[in-house]
Amino acid sequence: MTKLVNNAVGRLVPTEINGQEAIPFQGVGKYRPEGRKYGAPIRSCADYPADGDKTVATIKEALVNAGLCDGMTISTHHHLRNGDYVANAVFAAAAELGVKDLRWFPSASFPCHTGMIDLMESGVIHHIEGSMNGPLGDYCTRGKMKGMAVLRSHGGRYQAVQDGEVKIDIAVIAAPCADSFGNATGDRGPTACGLLGFALADSEYADHVIAVTDNLVPFPCVPWQIQGNNVDQVVVMDSIGDAGKIISGTTKITKSPDRLLIAEMTARFCDEAGIVRDGFSFQAGAGGTALSFALFLRDMMRERNIKARFVRGGSTQYLVDMLEDGLTEYILDGQTFDLEGVRSMRENSGHLNTSPFTSYNWHGKGNFASLLDVVVLGATEVDVNFNANVVTHSDGRLLHGIGGWQNCLASKCTILPIPSFRDRIPVLVDEVTTLCGPGELIDVIVTERGIAINPLRRDLLEQLRCSSLPIRPIAEIKGEVEEICGGAADKPELGDKVVAAIKWIDGTVIDCVRQVGS
Amino acid sequence: MTKLVNNAVGRLVPTEINGQEAIPFQGVGKYRPEGRKYGAPIRSCADYPADGDKTVATIKEALVNAGLCDGMTISTHHHLRNGDYVANAVFAAAAELGVKDLRWFPSASFPCHTGMIDLMESGVIHHIEGSMNGPLGDYCTRGKMKGMAVLRSHGGRYQAVQDGEVKIDIAVIAAPCADSFGNATGDRGPTACGLLGFALADSEYADHVIAVTDNLVPFPCVPWQIQGNNVDQVVVMDSIGDAGKIISGTTKITKSPDRLLIAEMTARFCDEAGIVRDGFSFQAGAGGTALSFALFLRDMMRERNIKARFVRGGSTQYLVDMLEDGLTEYILDGQTFDLEGVRSMRENSGHLNTSPFTSYNWHGKGNFASLLDVVVLGATEVDVNFNANVVTHSDGRLLHGIGGWQNCLASKCTILPIPSFRDRIPVLVDEVTTLCGPGELIDVIVTERGIAINPLRRDLLEQLRCSSLPIRPIAEIKGEVEEICGGAADKPELGDKVVAAIKWIDGTVIDCVRQVGS
Repeated sequence: MTKLVNNAVGRLVPTEINGQEAIPFQGVGKYRPEGRKYGAPIRSCADYPADGDKTVATIKEALVNAGLCDGMTISTHHHLRNGDYVANAVFAAAAELGVKDLRWFPSASFPCHTGMIDLMESGVIHHIEGSMNGPLGDYCTRGKMKGMAVLRSHGGRYQAVQDGEVKIDIAVIAAPCADSFGNATGDRGPTACGLLGFALADSEYADHVIAVTDNLVPFPCVPWQIQGNNVDQVVVMDSIGDAGKIISGTTKITKSPDRLLIAEMTARFCDEAGIVRDGFSFQAGAGGTALSFALFLRDMMRERNIKARFVRGGSTQYLVDMLEDGLTEYILDGQTFDLEGVRSMRENSGHLNTSPFTSYNWHGKGNFASLLDVVVLGATEVDVNFNANVVTHSDGRLLHGIGGWQNCLASKCTILPIPSFRDRIPVLVDEVTTLCGPGELIDVIVTERGIAINPLRRDLLEQLRCSSLPIRPIAEIKGEVEEICGGAADKPELGDKVVAAIKWIDGTVIDCVRQVGS
Repeated sequence: MTKLVNNAVGRLVPTEINGQEAIPFQGVGKYRPEGRKYGAPIRSCADYPADGDKTVATIKEALVNAGLCDGMTISTHHHLRNGDYVANAVFAAAAELGVKDLRWFPSASFPCHTGMIDLMESGVIHHIEGSMNGPLGDYCTRGKMKGMAVLRSHGGRYQAVQDGEVKIDIAVIAAPCADSFGNATGDRGPTACGLLGFALADSEYADHVIAVTDNLVPFPCVPWQIQGNNVDQVVVMDSIGDAGKIISGTTKITKSPDRLLIAEMTARFCDEAGIVRDGFSFQAGAGGTALSFALFLRDMMRERNIKARFVRGGSTQYLVDMLEDGLTEYILDGQTFDLEGVRSMRENSGHLNTSPFTSYNWHGKGNFASLLDVVVLGATEVDVNFNANVVTHSDGRLLHGIGGWQNCLASKCTILPIPSFRDRIPVLVDEVTTLCGPGELIDVIVTERGIAINPLRRDLLEQLRCSSLPIRPIAEIKGEVEEICGGAADKPELGDKVVAAIKWIDGTVIDCVRQVGS
């Protein structure tokens, strides 16, 4: 039985994860790391082809060359999202080779990876450490995985690799364009996805790195988002992904009147808080509400001739329009969500590639996240102390990844525009099912029934004192929602077994997920 | 007395350098490194300003914050070449702070740093490890430095830092443009120098990194050639360098009839050897002969409608012309030698920044140098076995740095176009004063009296068998030169004291420099 202790936010968390010691969350900014970054093995050019041609015929051959054996850690990345063919091909090859008990360390997994369940059943994969969207998360929640899942934010994943907390034996990088030396880029080719930033840590720190492409070009492949000097082998596949599922042709703004109201109130809040001014910066995701928020903001900026210094993506056609219309000087992009984002990244020198290292790594010398004037994020639940959940539903099932969510909380103003209930289940709760973000970092909740400002942000409360916006205590909004929904959300029936640990951005354990059902 | 042993090229070399064990050269590609790359200390964003502003008022304050103390290693870089103000300012501040016995680890030093001699006399600087051009090299050769100098190639310097052979306590990076977060670029600003690649290793591996700029811009400074996430502090100075001395307004082709002949023969040799074909690549430096060679090559390419895939800089207006005229798809640039190079790097997406990591690091998974079809380099001496010297003169004085010279020898065809004598002293000798490059890697010597092909390159000898070019045995050319000069070059009178070690690209010691005079 896993030993559990109470951490600084009052959550019972394991002190050991898959046989490795784990440190309970100590409070925001409290845990100070020691020691030195992990060092990848020193290699010699004498062991690599002088003509730079590192191609091998198949993934299977590459895995054999890499010395694949039982119990190793293999990493993949989610740039190809739900259209990825590469991770499946890698583990199919591993299964053919007869290896067992692999740790799969994806930056995220998607429904297209549902076949991995069979490989977990057959013992090829021991467990997954990485965000799980959909069926794999459900499988995990039901207690089926042999090992404990570990969920990390984008920045937390970089931190874990950098610090040597996760040692990657073999990194496999799906590359929409690559040369035989291993230089690779995601911004062009039939399966273009934009950038490859989630694979940066892996390329730098893994013992062995394999690039897989369906679009081999003569050296040099530019831009070398992944540097061939970090790559051991290059494999050419017919196709690395389903272009239709890698990126949406268009990202859609919300049509729901409630969501539109929330988006508009969020934009108005930013305005009244004095955030929308020349040279400001913001980050909003690609969800319907966040996109709509960005459009309200855009109209406001146009009207008043205000120009942002930078906006952060996930980029979409809407951010690209803002860049091309001169409403922002730069897009600092972490991932591209549509084809316009990919095109802009390829063509516009103001559309900059970022990575979890530049943007999110907490164990660096600062990162970009804390420079943002405002960030707009989602949540599945928020409690009366502004603690928020982003990975589980109220029924306890782990169905979402963390993404950059935890990392973004470092911004100067973090706003969660959320509906106050979903499917008649209140989103505002007494206690979140899973605590992913400490309330002290969440400044504002915007719902269709009012805006709650975190009492810790006296400056914002003061600034908005005379606002016409419906600023209300969070408990009051929650009470109103419960009346509508016929009471508070039911507590989920959770088992004892810890199926997943949730890491904080500093590598400590902030919460865990318990088994639900069987 | 330093213990000396014979290495694989028959040179007596020290087994200990400044108290640290040193490995004698074991032959090309023979030494295999072990262990892991050096890991810089793990930091936490909690210790850096959340608003990203890392500026401090003065270099002195920054050095105090960095914990400067006796015996530390401080690194600087030569992007500002003979116009650099920063290294002098750093050591002047260190002197004011009263510290002693510092190791100065520049990527190269220039005559503008002659003032460092006083700081070596007064004990502030213990010794220099880095290329020394001119007066500092002379000072070193006279046995005046307290420690032994260590000369490394650009790639060797990266390797030494990456492998933890040289631990940098404080790296100071002169930045023609930077933001307060520490992102920095060299391609713009009043002291623009092009790129900052020589500081890459330092930014990645030093314990503490200080960026010094005279051109602070709002975040983000792009392109972030140096990443602010690796930078601890930012200092703003009035001026970081003398723009007139950082880059030549124009780089000049040779006017000497002999040099022009050598350059033309080199181009013709490349042609007859089958190197000049569609998609080929070449590298030539910014010296007069190398530039002239590039022009002869250019004319040949134009005439026959041949296009290179890439050329490597040091870039000059001539390479930029080739890029803009479509004679090459890419410039892979390691340093910019004139303002046209800087402009092109800033404006042309085909003008790519490279670094010692991508281009030269021998302890990586391959590097760009070995992909070059042909490279054209200089030398101060070449012996009958094609061993070459690039750091000392025939009188034994250490007056030149190694640059990327050793690294470039990895190309598919390495040609040294050199005059057969200089100032009536033969350049072709029985034994080089200092052996920097093993003869087995040097394929062709082109002199005004004939072309010598290394007997190891039977393929080239065969290919050029019926050439109208004056292909001759090297000993024959040497004999002719000695007749003209009235005999072989005098052996220099060398002392016993080893004043400098010359590293090979794998970190082993290939030769050393002895004291001359006093």
